[in-house]
Amino acid sequence: MNYIPVNFNEKFSKFTEYFSPKVIAEMNDYSFKLTKFKGDFVWHKHDNTDEAFIVIDGEMRIDFRDGAVTLKSGEMFVVPKGVEHKPIAEDECRIMLVEPTGVVNTGDAGGEMTAEDEWI
Amino acid sequence: MNYIPVNFNEKFSKFTEYFSPKVIAEMNDYSFKLTKFKGDFVWHKHDNTDEAFIVIDGEMRIDFRDGAVTLKSGEMFVVPKGVEHKPIAEDECRIMLVEPTGVVNTGDAGGEMTAEDEWI
Repeated sequence: MNYIPVNFNEKFSKFTEYFSPKVIAEMNDYSFKLTKFKGDFVWHKHDNTDEAFIVIDGEMRIDFRDGAVTLKSGEMFVVPKGVEHKPIAEDECRIMLVEPTGVVNTGDAGGEMTAEDEWI
Repeated sequence: MNYIPVNFNEKFSKFTEYFSPKVIAEMNDYSFKLTKFKGDFVWHKHDNTDEAFIVIDGEMRIDFRDGAVTLKSGEMFVVPKGVEHKPIAEDECRIMLVEPTGVVNTGDAGGEMTAEDEWI
């Protein structure tokens, strides 16, 4: 059988939208999603799950109500469930998210930045 | 509050052993583990879970009974549960594994390459 690796750069080349996660792999009932950030996302939280951010390329910040964390390529951070956060990227940043399948990007906030997950 | 990113290179600098996964983060009941591969691991499977391999630096291969996949830096592959596999790296390869907390590296095979997970 022919097994195919998932190549991040090849997958990133398939979309240009910001803040619109694309599913590239699943593991049990979790999804690996690539997304490009540029600008400010909305304040939100996920009441039922933690959420892992892994920076593949670039730099981003996650603001919390009581602080912030800056993440560069080769760094990750897990936002605990129920904690309000706001991702921000001054320049385009390429990220992998890991979270349970079906988690909505805007969490409890909803609104116009809500995006449907799409497999690429 | 001061939030600290998890930096892969900094974590990799903390250990030298091969095939001995180190936990660097948890998300719900899943663990992110860094490991260095060099040489042949053992044939094994995980009957109850998929297992995600993400190559951070270097190149490795996963042999299956009916094929193989080669993974380079910036690539990933999810081994389905119950599928026998054998990781191999000719030269040192740096990997991140994502799997449920407590999964044993040698799965059903056991033996001398079995390693206790350790937080770093």
